[in-house]
Amino acid sequence: MKYIESLIRNIPDFPKPGIQFKDITPVLADAEAFKTVIDWYAMSVEAAGGCDVIAGIESRGFIFGSALARKLHKGFIPIRKPGKLPFTTHRETYQLEYGQDAVEIHTDAVKQGERVALIDDLLATGGTANASISLIEKAGGEIVCSAFVIELDFLRGRERLNLHEEKIFSFIHY
Amino acid sequence: MKYIESLIRNIPDFPKPGIQFKDITPVLADAEAFKTVIDWYAMSVEAAGGCDVIAGIESRGFIFGSALARKLHKGFIPIRKPGKLPFTTHRETYQLEYGQDAVEIHTDAVKQGERVALIDDLLATGGTANASISLIEKAGGEIVCSAFVIELDFLRGRERLNLHEEKIFSFIHY
Repeated sequence: MKYIESLIRNIPDFPKPGIQFKDITPVLADAEAFKTVIDWYAMSVEAAGGCDVIAGIESRGFIFGSALARKLHKGFIPIRKPGKLPFTTHRETYQLEYGQDAVEIHTDAVKQGERVALIDDLLATGGTANASISLIEKAGGEIVCSAFVIELDFLRGRERLNLHEEKIFSFIHY
Repeated sequence: MKYIESLIRNIPDFPKPGIQFKDITPVLADAEAFKTVIDWYAMSVEAAGGCDVIAGIESRGFIFGSALARKLHKGFIPIRKPGKLPFTTHRETYQLEYGQDAVEIHTDAVKQGERVALIDDLLATGGTANASISLIEKAGGEIVCSAFVIELDFLRGRERLNLHEEKIFSFIHY
């Protein structure tokens, strides 16, 4: 974990002044580090009792989620920004500090009762993750866990997620 | 291949009137189909003599590229839309039918002389792929191949790619 942490690069004032962005691209570029992170996601899903399918949030959640789906021999469901998915979608809007944003899922993405592991790179305020949880439930799925490489503890997103504390997994905390 | 083809959904008039969008989300959702496609990408890279690292183009190229990187035990390099990558970047602009677009890569994403396999879901006119090839070369990499699940033959993107014909792989042709 120390090794992974050493690869995460801090970018001050990105994308906006005052934000310390955690750049995980050096983790991706390092085959062994990337493997370690995907193995950790797999262990988290296993600890949560396994899943039927992996959902990943656009777009860094695609990188971790799809590699995890292949490792676990599961299918992969993309949760995307509005207007990107071509078929009929459910949409969930959520508040940002200024304004709002939304995410979408295909209405046929999840089979009724499927156990879904929700993957993203970062848990910040939890807005996107919570909206994604709602989408998956609206589509008929059950969230077995949500897992993140990084959690920004000071933003307390964990407390806001509509998910039992034990179902939230983070590899590195800041 | 027939099975994969049967899963690709045609969406008329998306994202614009007149375009027949090829929706690959049913392929992703099917664990066996997803595995077949990733295995095919791996065979393509092997046929091209192997690679040191995988680059994927935002954002469906992330889904296939990162799963492939894990399978081959390689690192993964994201090529992104402008403004998304937090560190210093190279940028390459390319023409669209109306207007222009651009892609970026981190200046330190590729090690000098690294052999890069470039992954995306679709080869259409080749604009994004060509810009991505330029970026990888600018960053110091060598393109060993470029591979796509779908190629739209009638758009003749293959002829426009700055890459030897034998280094371009497509699973399904329309």
